[in-house]
Amino acid sequence: MEKFRFLTAGESHGKYLTAIIEGLPSGIEIDINFINEELKRRQKGYGRGARMEIETDTVEITSGVRYGKTIGSPVTLVIKNRDFESWEKVMSIAPEDITDEKEFTTYRPGHADWAGSVKYSTNLRNILERSSARKTAIEVAVGAVAKLLLKQLNIDCKSEITQIGSACCCGDFEKEIDLAKENGDTVGGKFVVLYQNLPAGLGSHVHWDRGIDGRKAQAVMSIPAVKVVEIGTNPLGYYGSNYHDEFSIDNGEIGRTSNNAGGIEGGITNGQDLVVSAVMKPIPTMKKPLKSVDSKTLKETEAHFERSDVCAVEACSVVAESRIAWVLVNEILLKFGGDSLEELKRNYKI
Amino acid sequence: MEKFRFLTAGESHGKYLTAIIEGLPSGIEIDINFINEELKRRQKGYGRGARMEIETDTVEITSGVRYGKTIGSPVTLVIKNRDFESWEKVMSIAPEDITDEKEFTTYRPGHADWAGSVKYSTNLRNILERSSARKTAIEVAVGAVAKLLLKQLNIDCKSEITQIGSACCCGDFEKEIDLAKENGDTVGGKFVVLYQNLPAGLGSHVHWDRGIDGRKAQAVMSIPAVKVVEIGTNPLGYYGSNYHDEFSIDNGEIGRTSNNAGGIEGGITNGQDLVVSAVMKPIPTMKKPLKSVDSKTLKETEAHFERSDVCAVEACSVVAESRIAWVLVNEILLKFGGDSLEELKRNYKI
Amino acid sequence: MEKFRFLTAGESHGKYLTAIIEGLPSGIEIDINFINEELKRRQKGYGRGARMEIETDTVEITSGVRYGKTIGSPVTLVIKNRDFESWEKVMSIAPEDITDEKEFTTYRPGHADWAGSVKYSTNLRNILERSSARKTAIEVAVGAVAKLLLKQLNIDCKSEITQIGSACCCGDFEKEIDLAKENGDTVGGKFVVLYQNLPAGLGSHVHWDRGIDGRKAQAVMSIPAVKVVEIGTNPLGYYGSNYHDEFSIDNGEIGRTSNNAGGIEGGITNGQDLVVSAVMKPIPTMKKPLKSVDSKTLKETEAHFERSDVCAVEACSVVAESRIAWVLVNEILLKFGGDSLEELKRNYKI
Amino acid sequence: MEKFRFLTAGESHGKYLTAIIEGLPSGIEIDINFINEELKRRQKGYGRGARMEIETDTVEITSGVRYGKTIGSPVTLVIKNRDFESWEKVMSIAPEDITDEKEFTTYRPGHADWAGSVKYSTNLRNILERSSARKTAIEVAVGAVAKLLLKQLNIDCKSEITQIGSACCCGDFEKEIDLAKENGDTVGGKFVVLYQNLPAGLGSHVHWDRGIDGRKAQAVMSIPAVKVVEIGTNPLGYYGSNYHDEFSIDNGEIGRTSNNAGGIEGGITNGQDLVVSAVMKPIPTMKKPLKSVDSKTLKETEAHFERSDVCAVEACSVVAESRIAWVLVNEILLKFGGDSLEELKRNYKI
Repeated sequence: MEKFRFLTAGESHGKYLTAIIEGLPSGIEIDINFINEELKRRQKGYGRGARMEIETDTVEITSGVRYGKTIGSPVTLVIKNRDFESWEKVMSIAPEDITDEKEFTTYRPGHADWAGSVKYSTNLRNILERSSARKTAIEVAVGAVAKLLLKQLNIDCKSEITQIGSACCCGDFEKEIDLAKENGDTVGGKFVVLYQNLPAGLGSHVHWDRGIDGRKAQAVMSIPAVKVVEIGTNPLGYYGSNYHDEFSIDNGEIGRTSNNAGGIEGGITNGQDLVVSAVMKPIPTMKKPLKSVDSKTLKETEAHFERSDVCAVEACSVVAESRIAWVLVNEILLKFGGDSLEELKRNYKI
Repeated sequence: MEKFRFLTAGESHGKYLTAIIEGLPSGIEIDINFINEELKRRQKGYGRGARMEIETDTVEITSGVRYGKTIGSPVTLVIKNRDFESWEKVMSIAPEDITDEKEFTTYRPGHADWAGSVKYSTNLRNILERSSARKTAIEVAVGAVAKLLLKQLNIDCKSEITQIGSACCCGDFEKEIDLAKENGDTVGGKFVVLYQNLPAGLGSHVHWDRGIDGRKAQAVMSIPAVKVVEIGTNPLGYYGSNYHDEFSIDNGEIGRTSNNAGGIEGGITNGQDLVVSAVMKPIPTMKKPLKSVDSKTLKETEAHFERSDVCAVEACSVVAESRIAWVLVNEILLKFGGDSLEELKRNYKI
Repeated sequence: MEKFRFLTAGESHGKYLTAIIEGLPSGIEIDINFINEELKRRQKGYGRGARMEIETDTVEITSGVRYGKTIGSPVTLVIKNRDFESWEKVMSIAPEDITDEKEFTTYRPGHADWAGSVKYSTNLRNILERSSARKTAIEVAVGAVAKLLLKQLNIDCKSEITQIGSACCCGDFEKEIDLAKENGDTVGGKFVVLYQNLPAGLGSHVHWDRGIDGRKAQAVMSIPAVKVVEIGTNPLGYYGSNYHDEFSIDNGEIGRTSNNAGGIEGGITNGQDLVVSAVMKPIPTMKKPLKSVDSKTLKETEAHFERSDVCAVEACSVVAESRIAWVLVNEILLKFGGDSLEELKRNYKI
Repeated sequence: MEKFRFLTAGESHGKYLTAIIEGLPSGIEIDINFINEELKRRQKGYGRGARMEIETDTVEITSGVRYGKTIGSPVTLVIKNRDFESWEKVMSIAPEDITDEKEFTTYRPGHADWAGSVKYSTNLRNILERSSARKTAIEVAVGAVAKLLLKQLNIDCKSEITQIGSACCCGDFEKEIDLAKENGDTVGGKFVVLYQNLPAGLGSHVHWDRGIDGRKAQAVMSIPAVKVVEIGTNPLGYYGSNYHDEFSIDNGEIGRTSNNAGGIEGGITNGQDLVVSAVMKPIPTMKKPLKSVDSKTLKETEAHFERSDVCAVEACSVVAESRIAWVLVNEILLKFGGDSLEELKRNYKI
């Protein structure tokens, strides 16, 4: 039931991160600067470590776009890993290059290490390389393409951090991160994503897997660090009488007096702002290492340490924005059809 | 990417609720009493209204099972609506039976009424009939079939209510519901679902849409009344050092000292208990009606009132259990293959 | 990538054949007489046996339609098997009814018997019951619903038998069938299906699995008895210069001088008539039985004989029409979107 | 229902052809020389034009493989277009590079030109670039990866040309091509693909879209030049008594006396050789141009001419082999599961 299909590929220290997007209408303006700006947004945020500076990701488009517009054929996005040279041997595809360099044997709690290596009968480096948050760079690039389509339908997006650690006040966020850093620790938080000017009628109540609430929840919860997803206002502590969004007439038009539903009723967008919140767990790799076990010796030891972000909630919110954009584009194409932007707009009545 | 496929159908007051399940291995024992017990569990719970007594759902299997076992072909489940006789004319498929009886014109806040009728260009009755929670009966039946497969792999399930309204103590739950009832109001709550004895390695980190966390979140969030989904412990307020589940060696075996991850790391089950919580909003239909608008006159009025549950959190937890069972069976079939239970068990190493 | 989703279920001698169709726009007129006419067409044709008279299938709709029109929710179709009473015990789902009655142990060549019983580790009756051509009845009912949508877009369908056995002349078809019958044999043939007034632009060249030629080929080749599928004119013996359909200008409009492509170029409909031919093999169950092997004794013997059609090419053409209708409706919904017939028609520009 | 998922991208004269394959087990040996050999096979064959010599395609793998083996994460394949430099401006993604160079305005009969440009509201170059047979290079690379997995399960493949134009004798094939060439014409033909040592039980009779016959037919018919697909022996002119493959006992084992079914009964592989034939139409671009219409002037003229193969049936057979490999790998993974080659082999019992 997907019209906006894509696959992403690439290891954290591999040569390229790549995505192929299939199903875009022709005629969408692809502003490569916007994609790169989105990549930059993913990299910044108070609490990020040194690698972010190495990366400064930029995208190359190698198919599907000509003279600044999509032509209907699949779009390929490529992000080069800038420090690939120093990893070339370690990440080589050639059998003869095999080496133990950069291999590690202690499971990192909170990561895919243990479950992944059991599932795929392979070493921990092979799991780390794909389960790394690095792959969200190419996901954000895909999301940026989706956002470009949404912009051409006048749909806007923003997000905001609402909590870092125990701090719910914007002014205290940096202190909370500094404190964690001093302790060699990490800290998570909560953010909210808003999409505005959405059409009513995306998603459906007629079958469980067509509900746009579920599709959004999948997109956001599958960000590896996200453990909680909320749509609209958390209803805990509310009664029916003060939770639901009553209807009213304003200047002869039907309106609502609140938006606790977060823009979705019965699995369908209702024309109000779409509001999705999520809680990101603290990054599980930290200077003060967690207790672990060595996969070779089966002895207790300390977890392997490779990266050094203290807090990446801001980055996470950009990833969540991107993923919600995927879902929205898919739903819009399902509802309105259209093989060119022109046809889509005509059906969409813009 | 689905091996356990199914479709459900049926209106709240239609003749049948029906489901077809495709992709089950042959040889699974189908205990129809267990399915009916699950249907009963969905109907009970403190705070349910009168319709639950009319319903006392039972399932009929009309294909795919012979002499108590699946035969590999699609399984059809049918639940008859017991009060269909009194709705026969209203729900008739014949053009000549057309009537305004039971039609209503005021949107119910918190329901699909407005968005659904705009999307499908149809009247509110047509939307209510399919968006009703009634359809979760057949979903629970599908879930019961999935659970029967899980049982044959020794996988168990349970769930528990952890909050009703503002009451977090089990002993206060009924009072909270009584209070709401007295006020003509409704109340929601929170519950947790546990699956035990799952294999490690379900889901994957290699592509966003294969993460089992996202798939579970979709399954639970698309329950119309659910607005929040959590996997494991909500990380808000934790640091990395006290959130992640450290590894240890117990009697020579790798173990964990906690389960904040709720059994999923990197989108993959890690062999610990699977823990999924959800918050259900208060039921939006209530005796003390919400303000609304009449779709014909566009004048402000009170919302249409049809059902009378005060609280259905317990039912909701049964629906959530069922939906998680769907996801688990699908993932198990994807990982282990097997066209018969015998072959599945051999691959599964039971 | 499916918008018109459905599942079918039911055993040849089970209680019901059932289908659930999900994804239909609201507002489509469902003429139940038309569906029943289509079911009748599947049952007739020179060379059919006695069971066809018992069957005289009629459909019941138990969801998704109200007052003669779809309402957007899933549509359930049910066909009762008229001779179920005599099979009730044999096809029982209750473990206690287990019996050897109607069991058989010799594989029928040309059927799923051997491969199916190996795959599903089950007896031959369980395989026969689902692999029987009986299930095409419910497939034709689904196709009839699809055709009703196509009709409302002015798209017409017809089919014709072009060969029976070695007879390519319509006048000789019955003789060929009589001859086979006299010999206790069976005979196949070839037919062509035409769809007229299709819009240009269904399917796509941009990715292999979006080509409408491939999708049609899958739909027709997966009819168990079909072994050959052709789109347009078989090119064997043609040169490029006399095969391809040249463009011309007729009264100022672009036209074509031929239609060897059968209405598809580059995987896309080109607005000409869609032409799909198929060859049906002779029915593998015959009075003069084929040599086989007994699955219990592993001794050579004669194949099990249950049905007695001599030729079913006409029925097969109705099934092929239906399956092509599925593909067309799906492609139309993908291209034009629309949640109601009204919206679809507006996008479609009728 | 796909476990072996992939997307391909790339224009005929674009920078790269790219594919991402998702769903491969870990541990599969990836012999890059084999992939390149397959690419070479696609390029050779009597009757090919000059571009084939420019191309000499080779693949680069940029993800998913380490030290010669898959690691479970998505595999990216890249083929550089060797003459991209001369097309860099024409195929530029930058809006400022816009040019009319290489644009053409006369539809080529037998190509996607007309239908594609109508569908996507775009110029003919944009359609040609993606609808070109050039994209089959990356499809063959994907197929080669699939074949590498099949080889590790001892499954072999071969194909053979059985007709060129009107010549059914291998010795006359080149004459037929020479003749067409002399006339400025093109010629098609027929070929057969064989897969040997397949397990029984791939595909299924239980639901139409699981039949492996239909899936193969889709894969082969969606090759743009293919108009006819046959599985096993074309039944035209046979009776039931001489078409179906009787069972026998040979040395105590069940065997068959023929293989007219081509290895599939009831939509399931039956352990015999899989036999799929296809007819390729003559290439529609030829020196002696077809009549056409200019899309700008709407006047009659001659079709645009860009490539110069006279016959590409051999290449087409390699593409068909590849596509059947996709289907087989998918079915094997669905049936046997397995996240590593080791686990797959254990379930497969090799």
